[in-house]
Amino acid sequence: MNKPETNHKGGDALAECYQSVRRYSLAITAQLSVEDCQLQAMPDVSPCKWHLAHTTWFFETFLLSIHCKNYQVFDPQFKVLFNSYYNGIGAQFKRSNRGSLSRPSLKDVLTYRAYVDKAVLQLLSTHNDDVIEQIITLGLNHEQQHQELMLMDIKYNFSVNPTFPKYKAIDIPISNNNNLIKPANFIDFDQAIVNIGTSDQTQFAYDNEQPKHQVLIHSFRFANRLVTNGEYLAFINAGGYNNPQYWLSDGWAHSKNQGLSKPLYWHYIDGKWFEFTHYGLQPLNFNAPVCHVSYFEATAYANFVDARLPTEFEWEYVAKAHNVIKPSQNQLMPGQCEGDEKITQLTDACWQWTNSAYLPYPGFKPIEGVAGEYNGKFMNNQMVLRGGCVFTPKNHLRTTYRNFYYPHQAWMCSGIRLARDKV
Amino acid sequence: MNKPETNHKGGDALAECYQSVRRYSLAITAQLSVEDCQLQAMPDVSPCKWHLAHTTWFFETFLLSIHCKNYQVFDPQFKVLFNSYYNGIGAQFKRSNRGSLSRPSLKDVLTYRAYVDKAVLQLLSTHNDDVIEQIITLGLNHEQQHQELMLMDIKYNFSVNPTFPKYKAIDIPISNNNNLIKPANFIDFDQAIVNIGTSDQTQFAYDNEQPKHQVLIHSFRFANRLVTNGEYLAFINAGGYNNPQYWLSDGWAHSKNQGLSKPLYWHYIDGKWFEFTHYGLQPLNFNAPVCHVSYFEATAYANFVDARLPTEFEWEYVAKAHNVIKPSQNQLMPGQCEGDEKITQLTDACWQWTNSAYLPYPGFKPIEGVAGEYNGKFMNNQMVLRGGCVFTPKNHLRTTYRNFYYPHQAWMCSGIRLARDKV
Amino acid sequence: MNKPETNHKGGDALAECYQSVRRYSLAITAQLSVEDCQLQAMPDVSPCKWHLAHTTWFFETFLLSIHCKNYQVFDPQFKVLFNSYYNGIGAQFKRSNRGSLSRPSLKDVLTYRAYVDKAVLQLLSTHNDDVIEQIITLGLNHEQQHQELMLMDIKYNFSVNPTFPKYKAIDIPISNNNNLIKPANFIDFDQAIVNIGTSDQTQFAYDNEQPKHQVLIHSFRFANRLVTNGEYLAFINAGGYNNPQYWLSDGWAHSKNQGLSKPLYWHYIDGKWFEFTHYGLQPLNFNAPVCHVSYFEATAYANFVDARLPTEFEWEYVAKAHNVIKPSQNQLMPGQCEGDEKITQLTDACWQWTNSAYLPYPGFKPIEGVAGEYNGKFMNNQMVLRGGCVFTPKNHLRTTYRNFYYPHQAWMCSGIRLARDKV
Amino acid sequence: MNKPETNHKGGDALAECYQSVRRYSLAITAQLSVEDCQLQAMPDVSPCKWHLAHTTWFFETFLLSIHCKNYQVFDPQFKVLFNSYYNGIGAQFKRSNRGSLSRPSLKDVLTYRAYVDKAVLQLLSTHNDDVIEQIITLGLNHEQQHQELMLMDIKYNFSVNPTFPKYKAIDIPISNNNNLIKPANFIDFDQAIVNIGTSDQTQFAYDNEQPKHQVLIHSFRFANRLVTNGEYLAFINAGGYNNPQYWLSDGWAHSKNQGLSKPLYWHYIDGKWFEFTHYGLQPLNFNAPVCHVSYFEATAYANFVDARLPTEFEWEYVAKAHNVIKPSQNQLMPGQCEGDEKITQLTDACWQWTNSAYLPYPGFKPIEGVAGEYNGKFMNNQMVLRGGCVFTPKNHLRTTYRNFYYPHQAWMCSGIRLARDKV
Repeated sequence: MNKPETNHKGGDALAECYQSVRRYSLAITAQLSVEDCQLQAMPDVSPCKWHLAHTTWFFETFLLSIHCKNYQVFDPQFKVLFNSYYNGIGAQFKRSNRGSLSRPSLKDVLTYRAYVDKAVLQLLSTHNDDVIEQIITLGLNHEQQHQELMLMDIKYNFSVNPTFPKYKAIDIPISNNNNLIKPANFIDFDQAIVNIGTSDQTQFAYDNEQPKHQVLIHSFRFANRLVTNGEYLAFINAGGYNNPQYWLSDGWAHSKNQGLSKPLYWHYIDGKWFEFTHYGLQPLNFNAPVCHVSYFEATAYANFVDARLPTEFEWEYVAKAHNVIKPSQNQLMPGQCEGDEKITQLTDACWQWTNSAYLPYPGFKPIEGVAGEYNGKFMNNQMVLRGGCVFTPKNHLRTTYRNFYYPHQAWMCSGIRLARDKV
Repeated sequence: MNKPETNHKGGDALAECYQSVRRYSLAITAQLSVEDCQLQAMPDVSPCKWHLAHTTWFFETFLLSIHCKNYQVFDPQFKVLFNSYYNGIGAQFKRSNRGSLSRPSLKDVLTYRAYVDKAVLQLLSTHNDDVIEQIITLGLNHEQQHQELMLMDIKYNFSVNPTFPKYKAIDIPISNNNNLIKPANFIDFDQAIVNIGTSDQTQFAYDNEQPKHQVLIHSFRFANRLVTNGEYLAFINAGGYNNPQYWLSDGWAHSKNQGLSKPLYWHYIDGKWFEFTHYGLQPLNFNAPVCHVSYFEATAYANFVDARLPTEFEWEYVAKAHNVIKPSQNQLMPGQCEGDEKITQLTDACWQWTNSAYLPYPGFKPIEGVAGEYNGKFMNNQMVLRGGCVFTPKNHLRTTYRNFYYPHQAWMCSGIRLARDKV
Repeated sequence: MNKPETNHKGGDALAECYQSVRRYSLAITAQLSVEDCQLQAMPDVSPCKWHLAHTTWFFETFLLSIHCKNYQVFDPQFKVLFNSYYNGIGAQFKRSNRGSLSRPSLKDVLTYRAYVDKAVLQLLSTHNDDVIEQIITLGLNHEQQHQELMLMDIKYNFSVNPTFPKYKAIDIPISNNNNLIKPANFIDFDQAIVNIGTSDQTQFAYDNEQPKHQVLIHSFRFANRLVTNGEYLAFINAGGYNNPQYWLSDGWAHSKNQGLSKPLYWHYIDGKWFEFTHYGLQPLNFNAPVCHVSYFEATAYANFVDARLPTEFEWEYVAKAHNVIKPSQNQLMPGQCEGDEKITQLTDACWQWTNSAYLPYPGFKPIEGVAGEYNGKFMNNQMVLRGGCVFTPKNHLRTTYRNFYYPHQAWMCSGIRLARDKV
Repeated sequence: MNKPETNHKGGDALAECYQSVRRYSLAITAQLSVEDCQLQAMPDVSPCKWHLAHTTWFFETFLLSIHCKNYQVFDPQFKVLFNSYYNGIGAQFKRSNRGSLSRPSLKDVLTYRAYVDKAVLQLLSTHNDDVIEQIITLGLNHEQQHQELMLMDIKYNFSVNPTFPKYKAIDIPISNNNNLIKPANFIDFDQAIVNIGTSDQTQFAYDNEQPKHQVLIHSFRFANRLVTNGEYLAFINAGGYNNPQYWLSDGWAHSKNQGLSKPLYWHYIDGKWFEFTHYGLQPLNFNAPVCHVSYFEATAYANFVDARLPTEFEWEYVAKAHNVIKPSQNQLMPGQCEGDEKITQLTDACWQWTNSAYLPYPGFKPIEGVAGEYNGKFMNNQMVLRGGCVFTPKNHLRTTYRNFYYPHQAWMCSGIRLARDKV
């Protein structure tokens, strides 16, 4: 594992960082009721209570139980209850049943968090070495992933409630200027041998982003912005969901099996389009990026407009060239796409499906030890998404970051970036 | 529908009865946390919060909305959310997703209850007529059914939690004298033409218990008590779950599919048998009745001991002859079986599977109106259970009562009464 | 088991009977191709080749292997391959995979039949005793059941082929006089205590028809004929498949899950109704009885016309009173319903769903030995059909005969007889 | 599409080629019974009869119906019956039901083949142009793929029959010298920019192999031979199927769900290992390559020995460097692995799973027209296999050939080639 970003700050800086990240998890759930924190509306999502506990279990299991002498685990039963998928640690409570645990209560979980936080900070104040820093840094990045998951999962959990609950009151005006913006601009990139991934030991990165290696990229064209809701609606209105020619075979079968005819959170009510958001049901903004589409939908749309999705290498090449990694603006809905010429929305709107399967880089080595199950064992049947989105914590973005989901999944904030071959 | 039992007491008595039943629902959930009330650990069970709301919806829908002028529904969305299965009323929120509703909150539901209670009592104080009394009586009996369901569902919901939560602290000493009691005594009954069901308009009964009609019963023998855990354990130890000869074909297939080898709540830990109860995990009491067995298990056991299950008519004949309808003793576990000669445990221990399919009586007529869906449409593929159990509200017992479940289900408090042909 | 009908004829008569029944199985398949005999288009049906082998296996297993000294089994692997469901005999080849056995070939199976026939006739000529006669009689009745199953299964297997193959050329003119016949006549029957089932040891009957016992029947009304296609079409046209009020809850769920809107073999093509038959696709005869309907459909239709299905006891009472057990007319489609006043179509058109669950009679005892699995273990979740149909072998009819299927099944020749309470 | 290999031979040569390929399909099925040709033992496989018809349909649909004036289709119903997955052509008979078609008969299908062959040869003799040659060449390559599929499907169809039928009598002695050969030799390859795929218009290749493009390959090591049965058995004996650390997460879940503990066709009988083959059940040859393993098994094994699978680019690089494309030796079982130093078994034993997802090459364009569905729409969730196997027709091998299957599938002749990073 790399040395984390916080490496040179010393223990105090790391402690501060630790507290800041841990606090943000609580901030996300602060406005939820105890009942909200219990929800698991499908097997893919987890209750917020479980996220709060599991991220704590991570520190207890990989840090305190190993590196903290005389540490007493908070509750021996948590070893199984809050183990997500680490077979190296032992048995796991069944994933799809996480919503069936009323005990421990949310209150108990908060006590658990405080107990572990105290022990971690105590440890940090006395035993700050590289190994401990590396584990804490991994744990904090892990928790940031779960912060994004919590926002995704809350949205999904609320979406099945016919009363369309609001996670947040709207704090910004939602633009509904539906004059469609001008078409995307495709920018040319020439063939090149580029560096992909990282081996930089001074900045944290997951094992799946390593090592840095060369990739030969062929010339291509890259859309300056994401596909908009309005553009995607044209696909729907043209019968896109009823025409197999646009779809991958598996995507067509999935779409017919599930009776799909629109993105996950869209609703057509009394002749108007709406979208379920963290702010409740909102009129669909035609100029905002289409969001919560699956890889199947993304490829079908790309075929519809004679384009394709970029590879993850093309995406990373563009992102490194443009150096435009910026966080989103404190809100949970992507803003309007811009009519700009330049490349936008790399990290501050939606994750972008790529046409790259999630596979190991040449020379890939999993993290040593039981945390080695973190990434490698999922390198199968999933597609890489690149970028970042409005749910991603601000300092959790990197040009080398590889996100990954199954091609049918759509509850993450996933959008469509188009590319084309240069001919 | 019959005139309810409360008929002649006048409105005040009915109002008192109403308040008493409604209070008991709250008493059942009083010791549960908000999170506990949200649980739905399998599609067959419902969250306690949902039960509290649905029983209220019943009064709002079938009483207030029809018979109370100017009544304003508490929340128009509840019409769908808390409709269980009444197609005549309209759409229903998907049953298996009831646990996915964090909103309305438990607090909101309690407010809903108070709102409806106020309106019902107001109505009763001014418009007490037969129709209103009949609907209220039906609603109260309906709520009592849900009270039993709440106790069943809580038990199931807690049972999937590896920490084995306790619904209640133990309030009585649990006997563990495991000297097996003497074998059951089979009592002879001669052939007779008997009255089954009821047409008595002065006492409440569901439509499925009506009308009273004659049935010719052949001579039979009826066990004086229920089968004990110890007796059932002998079946297990004799390889009963691995020997198809005892099982119905569907039961054998179900048992193999599900990998069953013991009753639903039994656990074998470190060489000892335990049973999950409302009081947490408890050592198995060998002399208590075996409980939470399916019809498949009940018939397999009966075959194992060369007996059979009684018909529902035999059961009712015995019960009417012995007139021993008595409630259980304020606890949620069946007590010890007695070594008595006389017939015991008809209603105060476990429901008893009969070998009668749940079908309409000759001359059966569903309740008129939308409440007609209450019973009749379930007369298919279910078997009748007779008696009552430790979860049943005290004044919810009748010799004519017909309970019914699918043959594979076991989360209700179901035990085994044996019978034999008289030869 | 009862002494078979053939009992007093002596061995020669039984041998003749044996050969006659065995020949008829071959006659049924004579017009099928080798490929036709291999088909298994759903798990419920079996390939004709399998039926031919299994009925032979029955004689080999229950007769020759036990009662014929020095008998050499034809092929030891057949013990498993052609065992249907007898756990007492041992393992069984997986039912749903029967169509996946190209070996043994049809030719091999015919050789197997000849081999066993020779041994049976040899045995009969030398060792004719009661036990042997009883087993042979059971085996012949068993084979007759499979003859009906072969006709059912062929029809189903052909029905999934979009080319609508014809099992038979049409040998009789099909009436298409679609002037609807007059409404059914409901005939009154008074309350009575009647004998149900049989204990007659001089006539063959299955164990499930025994013993004879008294049943108290309440007064009722019994339709003189079956429901016609035209009448059932009125149910469809009135929106019957879209109105839950007519349906059992499980039936409604099943119907919606499967997207049902008409009987199994009906087709609506270019504005006209057709029915798939053994004679290929034929215009729907509005005055013929509706056929291949499930119990769910039968009860929904009965509710639609404010009637109900008869109990099996009512049916048997009527049949015994009218003594009109007659076979059908050498064809595989029910003929026209008659506008008669008197009771018709008891056994010569379609089996008739009753509202009786398939359960043991008082005093029921399975056949002793391994053949005891023949009937008893299926007494669960199935409904009784009474009568007989155009597929039933002529001498396989009895007033006490109990046929049984699951409520969703419809590939047997099942129709609707209506009854009503007498008020 | 490329001009096919046969391009410059003129019409006579193509006609000869056509007849040769078409005859080989018949040769494969010559030794099968009519019933064998009907089998479909799982949805993934098709009956041989269907393969024979579908390959004929391909010529009728894409060649004759378009390019042959006045051509009368053999049977209009075949358009649907034998369409595999071409939505552009229209509806398709349900794939999983192909085994449920006894009509048309095998005889009818053979007549269909002769009818189409005659028309194709007639067309070729009069209208030989580039377009026609290209379609015929595609059709012949298509048929060769189905020839391999027929051999795969027959093997699977026979494997579910407990009598273990033999497709062929053994024509060569099977070596059972189970002295394990020496360990594989890993050969070094340096980093290079290599040409992958083809754009050669003078040789046939599928669209998915095109266009030729450069790929940067990192230095790696490539095993000189495939993994043997004996080596794989060591994985089993070391508990490989019970240790999640070796498995991809999806692979572990699949393996547990299906209860896997060995390769698809292995059997452990009375203490000895056997393998089901086209020659019936045979003792396992420890020095032959392990075969019929899934990608999940292949990756688990590779992890077990601290190796990995090669990428498809590494494989192609090696194959082009060694130029050792050779067909197998007229038998349907891979021969012994050799103790050689040099690279062997590239194409003449088993297909080799690569660690490359099946995705389009840069600049990929599907074949124009309806045949464009041939390959592109399957570029999802499948992994590339490279090489060829003992079932592959001799002249169907190319270094650029890309085979592809889902990671759980194992009924193709798939083995394991190991690679390692060069450090």
